[in-house]
Amino acid sequence: MKDVNLGIVGLGNVGSGTLTILAENGDEIARKLGFRLNVTAVCSRSVKTKTLPAGLKPRLVTPDWREVVASPDVDVVAELIGGTGTAREVVEAALAAGKSVVTANKELVALEGVALWRQAEANGVTLAMEASVCGGIPIHSVLREGIAGDRIETLFGILNGTSNYILTEIEDHGSDFNAVLAEAQKLGYAEADPTADVDGFDARSKLALLTSLAFGVQLAPADIPTEGIRRISPTDFQYASQLDCTIKLLCSARRVDGGLFVSVRPALLSKRAIMAGVKGAYNAVWSRGTFGADTFYYGRGAGPNPTGVAVVSDLMRVARSLRPEPAHRVPPFAFTSLTESKPLEIGLQKRPWYLRFRITDQPGIIRDLSSILAEHSISIDAVLQLPDLDKHNLPFVITLENSPESAVRLAVEKMGRLPFMVEPPLALPMEKGV
Amino acid sequence: MKDVNLGIVGLGNVGSGTLTILAENGDEIARKLGFRLNVTAVCSRSVKTKTLPAGLKPRLVTPDWREVVASPDVDVVAELIGGTGTAREVVEAALAAGKSVVTANKELVALEGVALWRQAEANGVTLAMEASVCGGIPIHSVLREGIAGDRIETLFGILNGTSNYILTEIEDHGSDFNAVLAEAQKLGYAEADPTADVDGFDARSKLALLTSLAFGVQLAPADIPTEGIRRISPTDFQYASQLDCTIKLLCSARRVDGGLFVSVRPALLSKRAIMAGVKGAYNAVWSRGTFGADTFYYGRGAGPNPTGVAVVSDLMRVARSLRPEPAHRVPPFAFTSLTESKPLEIGLQKRPWYLRFRITDQPGIIRDLSSILAEHSISIDAVLQLPDLDKHNLPFVITLENSPESAVRLAVEKMGRLPFMVEPPLALPMEKGV
Repeated sequence: MKDVNLGIVGLGNVGSGTLTILAENGDEIARKLGFRLNVTAVCSRSVKTKTLPAGLKPRLVTPDWREVVASPDVDVVAELIGGTGTAREVVEAALAAGKSVVTANKELVALEGVALWRQAEANGVTLAMEASVCGGIPIHSVLREGIAGDRIETLFGILNGTSNYILTEIEDHGSDFNAVLAEAQKLGYAEADPTADVDGFDARSKLALLTSLAFGVQLAPADIPTEGIRRISPTDFQYASQLDCTIKLLCSARRVDGGLFVSVRPALLSKRAIMAGVKGAYNAVWSRGTFGADTFYYGRGAGPNPTGVAVVSDLMRVARSLRPEPAHRVPPFAFTSLTESKPLEIGLQKRPWYLRFRITDQPGIIRDLSSILAEHSISIDAVLQLPDLDKHNLPFVITLENSPESAVRLAVEKMGRLPFMVEPPLALPMEKGV
Repeated sequence: MKDVNLGIVGLGNVGSGTLTILAENGDEIARKLGFRLNVTAVCSRSVKTKTLPAGLKPRLVTPDWREVVASPDVDVVAELIGGTGTAREVVEAALAAGKSVVTANKELVALEGVALWRQAEANGVTLAMEASVCGGIPIHSVLREGIAGDRIETLFGILNGTSNYILTEIEDHGSDFNAVLAEAQKLGYAEADPTADVDGFDARSKLALLTSLAFGVQLAPADIPTEGIRRISPTDFQYASQLDCTIKLLCSARRVDGGLFVSVRPALLSKRAIMAGVKGAYNAVWSRGTFGADTFYYGRGAGPNPTGVAVVSDLMRVARSLRPEPAHRVPPFAFTSLTESKPLEIGLQKRPWYLRFRITDQPGIIRDLSSILAEHSISIDAVLQLPDLDKHNLPFVITLENSPESAVRLAVEKMGRLPFMVEPPLALPMEKGV
């Protein structure tokens, strides 16, 4: 079976993440596709100083992108340089050569996306751009296909991780904007020139793109009213909190009779909104459709590996379109075949635990329970008792450190037989979640 | 251009939602596809008593599904009957007739999904099943394609809306499980026999399906350790709250060396987890990948229209595969063409507003500010002042009722010129969000 050959142009953050995933996740990717993705060519200006991940042996390693685009060994080109100079030449040359292109380039796509798409169409190839907005969130795929049947009415986004990080720090630590920005710059979370992030311009380009996918319109980013976060102070978070709100740099696009209201600016957002829980450098998109109502998508906004996942998922999609099998062979279960399997014995799993008891109060209870736990080599984390008057049906709780479920089950069964138990203990695992 | 013809079998909740969307959203769907989806045949046992949405004129309306499957006028069959009896016959007959099938049938897919997929493959057609799990969330699409490049390590789900609704009610109102269940049954949110929902069996089937898509394994639902929510009491939420946690019926699948730990059961979940914000009848899936790290997906778990969106999005995908254009022609901007557009003048948008002032304290401030607001026909919602000692830089806040942005901007500009203003007022819109 013929594999599909990839040319990767640009080995910065996203390029490195992409190669890492192609190298380390190659087997699982092949199990999904039914064929392999081979990295046959790599281009980087400083190609001699780059170390490629183990297992990747491209035949062509060059500082000249033209060689990659022209190579008969390359079926698909990934443009991971960024910017609108060389990157644009690479994309145009690849499309002209009849090769599909995957790009992570928000600037280029915001500026020239429609023209490049038309060029791709004219050449019978694909332009794929999932990685250009919200690196870790497959929001293009969702809007383009996942909920394609719906009609979007409102789209909200937290689309700039740096400004969301800064707002979260102001909220959590009561520090001033300037102090938080300086700290973020020191830690490398914000650029030396932070304008694009904190004044909303980065978010604005991304919103323009998402507005196209959600509503089928093409907006000039400069037409979107945009306001940054420089004036947001700890005082504002205090007042917002009084109103049961937080403050987010909110990208919004709202369909009304006659058109769209579109803006990027800080806004108060109800703390009860699930979007209010988006902290730190995360991104999120919330959409309301006429039919599907509310859906919400959350993940890393950037980073080599999360953005690399978007690039690789696009490469898989494009690679499928180059194969002779009909495209509807995207397997409904995601993999070309499933392994019949049994879950591992759950008793082996270690979790922290919550044990809730209902007892008839009497001396020696903690002694009896803790002896049983000790017998099973289980460590107590804490004992909690809220005020309660019913001494004949008194609830209290013991939390356990990370312990194997089998030991906990045995101990709980034994504890359930103690004479002061009103009912069998309730044992629930404790999860931190994301 | 040849349109694609649909046969809809089953006009219950999901079938009605599907027809509604196909009728009311047909133009937008055609703008995305470049061709139309026509409902040419409809089957329902009680077909005479059903009213079809305006604009749908199927040539065939029949109580006999065999006529729909056999009709040369039908390219794709949507099986929306549910259950594993007739539904299975419909799907098998359609696949055997060389027609792709879209199904919303969780039971059938959990039981026979792999066999039906193989049958579809053998006949060169598609089995599409997005609507079978988490109706409103495109989670199949996400796992199958959106983040296909990643390697999932952990998947958490809140997959049963009824039990999440019951837990939310217990938490918010301190009522007992049995009281909440009785109320939910009265309101139609829970079935007369609630076992499938509250004892975890419905969630278990869904988890088995998602585990296949995420990890490429096939599990028997009966092998998944499962525990329901009957024992969760208000007391447990009180203790959980002390531990900064809530309680959810959590479906989890966790990859470790040697296999997967899989379970369905109530668990404590940190309130800081974004998943803790999933209230009422919503569903959510959180996944952690080796490369893309955390992503999170949220939406309605069921309902005619949200599930209808999943069915229609699948129909669009399948319809594309039947067209002569290569499948890579899924347009990168979701629509076949974009309308060049300008956003509406933002001044026309009405929102509630937050105005924050910094002033030198003196008498008459509220009078002066409220006069300006009244001049612009803007109504005050509330005046807030937190304790503050600096009388020469005193912050306070006025919130406004829903008001046009242009009026608010004019008023704010005028207020900014008042002599007691230390800096121009800060005006932020207020959003409820989802």
